[in-house]
Amino acid sequence: MKSAILCIGTEITTGLVRDQNAYFLAFHLTSVGLFPKLVLFVPDHKETIAKTLQFLFEDEEIQSLFITGGLGPTQDDLTRETLAEILGKKLCFIPEQWENIVRFYQKIRHTQPPENNRKQAFIPEGAVLLENPLGTAPGFISDFQNKKIFVIPGVPKETEYFWPIIKTHLPSHDNQFYRSEMIKICGVGESRFEHEIQPFLSSLPDTLQSAYLPYFGEVWFYLYSYEKNPQIIQNAENVIKKIKDVWKPYLFSQWGNTLEQACGMLLSEKHLTIAIAESCSGGLLSHRLTNVPGSSSYFYRGYVVYSNQAKIEDIGVPSSLLVQHGAVSEEVAHALAVGVRKNSNTDIGIGITGIAGPSGGSEQKPVGLVYIGISNSQHTQVKKYLFSGDREVIKTLSTQSALTQLFLQLQRGALNER
Amino acid sequence: MKSAILCIGTEITTGLVRDQNAYFLAFHLTSVGLFPKLVLFVPDHKETIAKTLQFLFEDEEIQSLFITGGLGPTQDDLTRETLAEILGKKLCFIPEQWENIVRFYQKIRHTQPPENNRKQAFIPEGAVLLENPLGTAPGFISDFQNKKIFVIPGVPKETEYFWPIIKTHLPSHDNQFYRSEMIKICGVGESRFEHEIQPFLSSLPDTLQSAYLPYFGEVWFYLYSYEKNPQIIQNAENVIKKIKDVWKPYLFSQWGNTLEQACGMLLSEKHLTIAIAESCSGGLLSHRLTNVPGSSSYFYRGYVVYSNQAKIEDIGVPSSLLVQHGAVSEEVAHALAVGVRKNSNTDIGIGITGIAGPSGGSEQKPVGLVYIGISNSQHTQVKKYLFSGDREVIKTLSTQSALTQLFLQLQRGALNER
Repeated sequence: MKSAILCIGTEITTGLVRDQNAYFLAFHLTSVGLFPKLVLFVPDHKETIAKTLQFLFEDEEIQSLFITGGLGPTQDDLTRETLAEILGKKLCFIPEQWENIVRFYQKIRHTQPPENNRKQAFIPEGAVLLENPLGTAPGFISDFQNKKIFVIPGVPKETEYFWPIIKTHLPSHDNQFYRSEMIKICGVGESRFEHEIQPFLSSLPDTLQSAYLPYFGEVWFYLYSYEKNPQIIQNAENVIKKIKDVWKPYLFSQWGNTLEQACGMLLSEKHLTIAIAESCSGGLLSHRLTNVPGSSSYFYRGYVVYSNQAKIEDIGVPSSLLVQHGAVSEEVAHALAVGVRKNSNTDIGIGITGIAGPSGGSEQKPVGLVYIGISNSQHTQVKKYLFSGDREVIKTLSTQSALTQLFLQLQRGALNER
Repeated sequence: MKSAILCIGTEITTGLVRDQNAYFLAFHLTSVGLFPKLVLFVPDHKETIAKTLQFLFEDEEIQSLFITGGLGPTQDDLTRETLAEILGKKLCFIPEQWENIVRFYQKIRHTQPPENNRKQAFIPEGAVLLENPLGTAPGFISDFQNKKIFVIPGVPKETEYFWPIIKTHLPSHDNQFYRSEMIKICGVGESRFEHEIQPFLSSLPDTLQSAYLPYFGEVWFYLYSYEKNPQIIQNAENVIKKIKDVWKPYLFSQWGNTLEQACGMLLSEKHLTIAIAESCSGGLLSHRLTNVPGSSSYFYRGYVVYSNQAKIEDIGVPSSLLVQHGAVSEEVAHALAVGVRKNSNTDIGIGITGIAGPSGGSEQKPVGLVYIGISNSQHTQVKKYLFSGDREVIKTLSTQSALTQLFLQLQRGALNER
């Protein structure tokens, strides 16, 4: 049983991108066995939308179609109208939906909705309305011959909101596609990982394939097959289990889907608290750690010590250190990690200093040079990195490396002491 | 003249994503007028690739097709074979390409290439080989009737490497797609904006269409047309100019592509400095401001004052205020903005306090309640917001609102005094 995802919006085809929906849907659809056969992006262009819908409708294999976007109030939002035309159904005004829009406007904007929002109260005849508490565009479900068509708003958060609701409406089907648990590791390169797990994989049947996805120093790995039977699943699960055992020190996905979640869970579990003083990463590390719900129980505070003055006044870095070694140095990273831990009275302190560029580099200290220190009451370790990439990449890699160091140390119990 | 982008690889259709290529190509193709009519992702699945190629080949409008991925050495890489089949051409062995592969292996891996790399030395009969110094998969250019077909490896770095080369091979064409300058405004809703610019648009020919892209409270707007002639361009430019004049107070795109860039440019221009004390946004505002190259000249420091202790110790918020009004209150936002400005000795201070959720909300202070204060030596203004969404959305909307307030005040000169 296959599905298809159609993202409608001018963005990508005019050179801009709003894509999370495709990925969100693809991920969740495969997890329930609705393997997406095709993912398409088309602009808000009537003929193109129509042609693409016809192409998808002609495909016998596609039994459910997920359409996002083009449901807004403006004249360039054409999904509703075009789909109704291809379905050969007229659009019907749904009074309840208009009331939802009015309520939404009163609650959020404290005004009446403008007239052009009225088109959002229309859905194709016979379609099932899916109410949208997050916005003015409703979702709906239509049928075409043996196909179920799910139409949801293109705002990523709204698409996410609708998934659990859509899920209850999915056509019953046998799951023909198998994907194993996804393993995520950090602190090891993709090629080394791939090389070292070969012995485990050699035993697998050809129908079971491996996928490796490097992501800013993380490696994501899973097995998948277009066949699904107990033998396949058994084979896959055995290998995944072996790999998880061997790579445990680097395996963070059992602690959460992201590195910051994994670190958060280990910090909570060990009842450890943390504070951060970051320079070149400019707040990104604090941002990532505080993205985790409940982080306020272990994350006490963060400092973005961009200026030397801030490093001295907020963290107590001796100005002599700054003069002698410069702001971007092992010594200053060390002083930031120790200082922020002490003046925040936390178990762990992290200090980051570096050159994010594009300017500010030199022969001795090039753009991309970053020092990261992690400190607790017993020891302080500073590592030196030389990243390449633009400013945002260097900020991201800095925080990835800090979280990786933190995870590896937490995982092996190196930060347990108070 | 239109193009299409076909990304072949298992990732997205097995629920994971490697997409940079599509966006990279879409962006660059529109910039040379090769408007992508369709962007498709398909798995390494022979029938699906074949069907999709046929669909694209049948489309008269598509005159150049860009295919990435599925050119690897492994058995699941099927792009080469399937395309040749649909083109009705056989695959030919290119000795020079095999030598490239051998050289690459010797240089990078210091070994001979395995036999399965040999398939990467085959390209469809009559195709033009594009050598790839970054990997073992070459690119190539084929023809099908009036279409040019560009095939390049799916590794993002390699796709980027090939663009300038492909560019020299693009079919000569009049740029038939026109896209006006993109206007970005903040502080005004999409519907209101659309409603109020109608008078300007009513004069435009039907061939000129408007695109509205809402983005976390910003509205992005541009005109586009699938026809391009001096009249169209003249019409569009006149309207864009009128809209820019009328909406100047809200128009940030003339100051930069992002709100943080726009704020940064205005801060530099006015020689103003800034410091931030943020609670619920957890470092995201500092992160965004420091994403702008050169921000160290106006961004002095940021505090992520997650705990009350941090608010008191770092910013000097009176504990009596916290007791009396609670951490999430107009008074504390005010104290944070004033306090961080004074103790950082900057011209401007921003304070953010709120409830990002999912927990921590109450009847009186629900999740999504956020106070944002902006202060300079003359005045301090605090605004109250009630956002809906999950933790990350509330963090994002908090920083969007802070940057919007900052921009609007800078733009109208409200923060000029020292």
